[in-house]
Amino acid sequence: MRLLVANPNTTDAITDACAAAARAAAAPGTEIIAVTARFGPAVIASRAENVIAGHAVLDLLAEHAGTVDAALLAVSHDTALDAARQIMPCPVVGMTEAACLTACMLGGRFGLVTFGGVELYRELMTRYGLESRLADIIGVNAATAEADADSIGSKVLAAARALAAEGATSVVLAGAALASLDNRLQEASPVPLLDGMACGVRMAELLVALKLPKPRAGSYAALAGRQASGISEPLGALLRGDR
Amino acid sequence: MRLLVANPNTTDAITDACAAAARAAAAPGTEIIAVTARFGPAVIASRAENVIAGHAVLDLLAEHAGTVDAALLAVSHDTALDAARQIMPCPVVGMTEAACLTACMLGGRFGLVTFGGVELYRELMTRYGLESRLADIIGVNAATAEADADSIGSKVLAAARALAAEGATSVVLAGAALASLDNRLQEASPVPLLDGMACGVRMAELLVALKLPKPRAGSYAALAGRQASGISEPLGALLRGDR
Amino acid sequence: MRLLVANPNTTDAITDACAAAARAAAAPGTEIIAVTARFGPAVIASRAENVIAGHAVLDLLAEHAGTVDAALLAVSHDTALDAARQIMPCPVVGMTEAACLTACMLGGRFGLVTFGGVELYRELMTRYGLESRLADIIGVNAATAEADADSIGSKVLAAARALAAEGATSVVLAGAALASLDNRLQEASPVPLLDGMACGVRMAELLVALKLPKPRAGSYAALAGRQASGISEPLGALLRGDR
Amino acid sequence: MRLLVANPNTTDAITDACAAAARAAAAPGTEIIAVTARFGPAVIASRAENVIAGHAVLDLLAEHAGTVDAALLAVSHDTALDAARQIMPCPVVGMTEAACLTACMLGGRFGLVTFGGVELYRELMTRYGLESRLADIIGVNAATAEADADSIGSKVLAAARALAAEGATSVVLAGAALASLDNRLQEASPVPLLDGMACGVRMAELLVALKLPKPRAGSYAALAGRQASGISEPLGALLRGDR
Amino acid sequence: MRLLVANPNTTDAITDACAAAARAAAAPGTEIIAVTARFGPAVIASRAENVIAGHAVLDLLAEHAGTVDAALLAVSHDTALDAARQIMPCPVVGMTEAACLTACMLGGRFGLVTFGGVELYRELMTRYGLESRLADIIGVNAATAEADADSIGSKVLAAARALAAEGATSVVLAGAALASLDNRLQEASPVPLLDGMACGVRMAELLVALKLPKPRAGSYAALAGRQASGISEPLGALLRGDR
Amino acid sequence: MRLLVANPNTTDAITDACAAAARAAAAPGTEIIAVTARFGPAVIASRAENVIAGHAVLDLLAEHAGTVDAALLAVSHDTALDAARQIMPCPVVGMTEAACLTACMLGGRFGLVTFGGVELYRELMTRYGLESRLADIIGVNAATAEADADSIGSKVLAAARALAAEGATSVVLAGAALASLDNRLQEASPVPLLDGMACGVRMAELLVALKLPKPRAGSYAALAGRQASGISEPLGALLRGDR
Repeated sequence: MRLLVANPNTTDAITDACAAAARAAAAPGTEIIAVTARFGPAVIASRAENVIAGHAVLDLLAEHAGTVDAALLAVSHDTALDAARQIMPCPVVGMTEAACLTACMLGGRFGLVTFGGVELYRELMTRYGLESRLADIIGVNAATAEADADSIGSKVLAAARALAAEGATSVVLAGAALASLDNRLQEASPVPLLDGMACGVRMAELLVALKLPKPRAGSYAALAGRQASGISEPLGALLRGDR
Repeated sequence: MRLLVANPNTTDAITDACAAAARAAAAPGTEIIAVTARFGPAVIASRAENVIAGHAVLDLLAEHAGTVDAALLAVSHDTALDAARQIMPCPVVGMTEAACLTACMLGGRFGLVTFGGVELYRELMTRYGLESRLADIIGVNAATAEADADSIGSKVLAAARALAAEGATSVVLAGAALASLDNRLQEASPVPLLDGMACGVRMAELLVALKLPKPRAGSYAALAGRQASGISEPLGALLRGDR
Repeated sequence: MRLLVANPNTTDAITDACAAAARAAAAPGTEIIAVTARFGPAVIASRAENVIAGHAVLDLLAEHAGTVDAALLAVSHDTALDAARQIMPCPVVGMTEAACLTACMLGGRFGLVTFGGVELYRELMTRYGLESRLADIIGVNAATAEADADSIGSKVLAAARALAAEGATSVVLAGAALASLDNRLQEASPVPLLDGMACGVRMAELLVALKLPKPRAGSYAALAGRQASGISEPLGALLRGDR
Repeated sequence: MRLLVANPNTTDAITDACAAAARAAAAPGTEIIAVTARFGPAVIASRAENVIAGHAVLDLLAEHAGTVDAALLAVSHDTALDAARQIMPCPVVGMTEAACLTACMLGGRFGLVTFGGVELYRELMTRYGLESRLADIIGVNAATAEADADSIGSKVLAAARALAAEGATSVVLAGAALASLDNRLQEASPVPLLDGMACGVRMAELLVALKLPKPRAGSYAALAGRQASGISEPLGALLRGDR
Repeated sequence: MRLLVANPNTTDAITDACAAAARAAAAPGTEIIAVTARFGPAVIASRAENVIAGHAVLDLLAEHAGTVDAALLAVSHDTALDAARQIMPCPVVGMTEAACLTACMLGGRFGLVTFGGVELYRELMTRYGLESRLADIIGVNAATAEADADSIGSKVLAAARALAAEGATSVVLAGAALASLDNRLQEASPVPLLDGMACGVRMAELLVALKLPKPRAGSYAALAGRQASGISEPLGALLRGDR
Repeated sequence: MRLLVANPNTTDAITDACAAAARAAAAPGTEIIAVTARFGPAVIASRAENVIAGHAVLDLLAEHAGTVDAALLAVSHDTALDAARQIMPCPVVGMTEAACLTACMLGGRFGLVTFGGVELYRELMTRYGLESRLADIIGVNAATAEADADSIGSKVLAAARALAAEGATSVVLAGAALASLDNRLQEASPVPLLDGMACGVRMAELLVALKLPKPRAGSYAALAGRQASGISEPLGALLRGDR
């Protein structure tokens, strides 16, 4: 299967890191096609950047609609995930949602660790209806840590231990900056650490394997006859239902 | 005060109708400046259109940032409301949120009537944390009704009566297509009907009168130093904090 | 418009302070009529006092029913707010509810600061269905602070900073003793401070401007034919529907 | 033990009916002292009446404070229940809360049947935090039914059957007008019917038997030093802590 | 009445302690029949032990079905409570649920103190729909404390004080190891301490006194015609409906 | 990988059907080992049967602990799922939870169709914290339908259509009796139908692929030193931590 790893950020380095993580996690037959948003924020870290990137990721996905078997959004905010599901003819997976749902399958409540502000992740959990499965969110201060991978690791491990002490059965690492930390810290952590790219790739493979049809009714059914201006031709075509 | 009525749809007729409704509702000293999105869907009625219009409305607001005292989003989906609050130096109001919060001040639970699908409005109520204040949502079938204003009125009135019977103290009319119906049907309805434009204009005036400062911390504080490409210069300037 | 500021406490000094705050916040055309409960607790600060004052405030409102355009309850417990809405022919606003709904329009979650016990405010938030919009409540210890306005200010500011750190976008100051603190502390606070009297006056003006009819059905419709003994004639008249 | 059955309505006939029901339900050693509010609504059936009766029932309870071992509020709205608990030196039980908590001990979810409007009962369930244990509330139309006990019985039985079909394991009959119906309809109902007076009497006996001390801290601790005017001497004494 | 105190643990010492506590709490006419599970964990303290003991307690109850007027489960996890209610012809009470519902009748929110892990109790509260009535759960570290009753008492008292400070009106002591502590610590605690065995015995007496019929419909109705193998004859008979 | 399909019912025909469904859904390298409970109910359809089967399925899993890479519970009640996760050294998946979490990845809310009573499934959804993702549950009357596969299909399809009309994006088929219906009805249904065995097999494969360690702390950590009597040697060994 062909899995589109779509980076809503415009930073190629993030795309490369996510592609590498995706390839490391994928099953043998899964081909990773990694692409970067054509416009928008370099790194999504605020409400406004997330909204702009929402348009950018739909634009990006539309360009590849019909040529891939599934898409995985390479951003911990799961930017525009539901809209992407509506317009795309294939399954679309968000890396944080995928990790949280995987965490649910380990039982009990999960914790979430991220860099910086936690409020957008709290809202995301509410949107997913997962509040009662969430033990807590800890925002690690990344200010000076970026220069020092060991320091980041120590902070994330401390957060995982704190969340386990609060009752978390597992901990989701949310944020591209945390990618690959799961492998390095897994052994030292009292509870399993879940990486969004790894969970996302496997969830995408699962959805493709299940061969579920697209909803033909309701708010996720494909669009038809919708008009728009000033957007890319491929995206416009998906709104019109021309593809 | 100068109130920007920003239409995230690209249809001028909607802008005109909303501007008229806003002027009818405004206090004497309120000047209405009505503007239309430069790109995006003609009419927002789906998840994908709402995401694209999110970018469009930020683009539109950025163009007017600093020249108005408040902004009101002229779309019942309150498109990109929180991101708009983050980047704008003035209060930003969503018409459906404004009507729902006004309904709360009448006591008890409110109902909501819209055209077509109700799922996006249900999610909006969850996002606002207003589920327990919501009696129910009724989606009026507008298929053939558009040609016949009387028929629409009858359907909306029937919905308002049904919601009152379910315990609603008031009913929010959500959707530009329902604008002005509140006045026509108010007398025949067992409970008050709330129009988003009227409530939104008055809420914007209230926020301006309160002279509240913008948050200097947290997820609604102004941005600074954020980089993006392929977006309008005014929007980029707000991300960089250049204004 | 004529706005009744009804103080359910029997302490005239509170009435005067609230009247002054209301006048400072009101629009030019708003006349403030400040009145004090005829009986009941000097200062409402417990469950039992709040219940007794509930009768007292209905008694007080009934006396002025038909002579004012709106009423604002000058007590942070929003005492008997829903019953007042039922019997009065005009809009009735609670100062804490008004501040909380204003806070909702700033986005995200709000904090609440009060003096002493927080449990009644927690229950009020549950009654309003605003739990998910509430970041936290902090009860400032006012024991020795009353003699020292600067000390109160420092404690409230510290509470506001703590709430902002927990993710609050704004902070509601609940309690007459906190009135006017919003202006003094606004500049030093990381997030906007909301005063119940200021928000309440403006919300009352908004409701009057909207000219909404009173519900004719349901649990907020005017009463008729209800019998009672040992209550004031004006209140009895509202129960009987004689006015 | 001496159990005060306090009727917040001013209608003696309700007091008599409740006293009879209480005596029928009580254990051998329980003496029932039935008393009627000195002022307030004849029959509580609205928000405003419930607030006025709140003062009346505190007035009534205060008169008997110290002379009884427990108190049971003889009104399905559990009027002023929490305030009563705060000021009284003995346990205070609400008949609807008692029936709902008894229903919880039968497992699963319960239904609730009442006469007329359901909105106040819905709010009561929310206040008790029992929403997830509530299957549904049905308001039986009592307009013409009062003249005909058989007709009432049929309607209540139909409601009980409908609630059982929705998944209710038991049904609470809320409202003095439904008293004694539980015995008559018990056999025909698919699930047990719970009467508030019977459950309330037994719950009061249980609390007395447990000999629990009154909270010495928090929002239910006895009051002291609180001033009020225009209220009865016994009630004032409880606020001052003179008893 | 005859009250079966059924210990799902296989440790006789727990049965004896619970029987003594039950006898101390019971009304004069209540005969306590204390029995111990025939198989399963010595002491239930984990998910798996709780599941195994679920079968064991049904096996134990079935042996006594028809010979007792009510049953009380002598384990703080309320093991298999709902299933026990389904198969038994008499009321079945869980000691922790009984204590929590008693706590509700004292008003406000309650706290819960236990030994060791709190996660299973948190899930129990969710299952009972009592989250909003729960102030917090504190797990006292019992590692070295078992040898020293005074030390346990100090820790439990400190927990009760912390819970009261968080707003709890009462505190439920959950765990056989905490039995009888309520009497010793009651005076020193700022809020009442509730013991599950005492509350459970009285709740069982209440249910017997109310003479409620067993549901004849729904998920708690008696079983009939259900086949099973490898289980005890009395339990099999209850599934088949032969008794 | 070796996947244990553990049937907690004692009916071999169910095991065979589930094994066939599992093999049809599995990836090429997945070997299905299907086993049947040694004791307990023939078919789990009530609270009591579910509890007895909880012990039976732990007994069954223990027998195979260490010889398989993952286990899938072949029963729509996800019997003893969390306890199984605690004791087993490998991932354990419940078929209904797996289908519901898969449904979450399709976006929006899902519906659930089952045979007969819905109350246990409602409680399961609450336990999983998925209430807000659940559109509704429909219990198809299977009384006479069992003899007629076409009739069952028609009823399930009607239920799926009703759930889609209520806003469901997908529909979970819960119950062994519904196995394989997803394939037959998929084309006629307006929204995708999800089968628990198919989703469960794929979720088990996903968890094995992720190579997550078992929690070493908290309520899902492996047991050690726990004593029990009258249970199978393999199960006892897992409690003691001997394996």
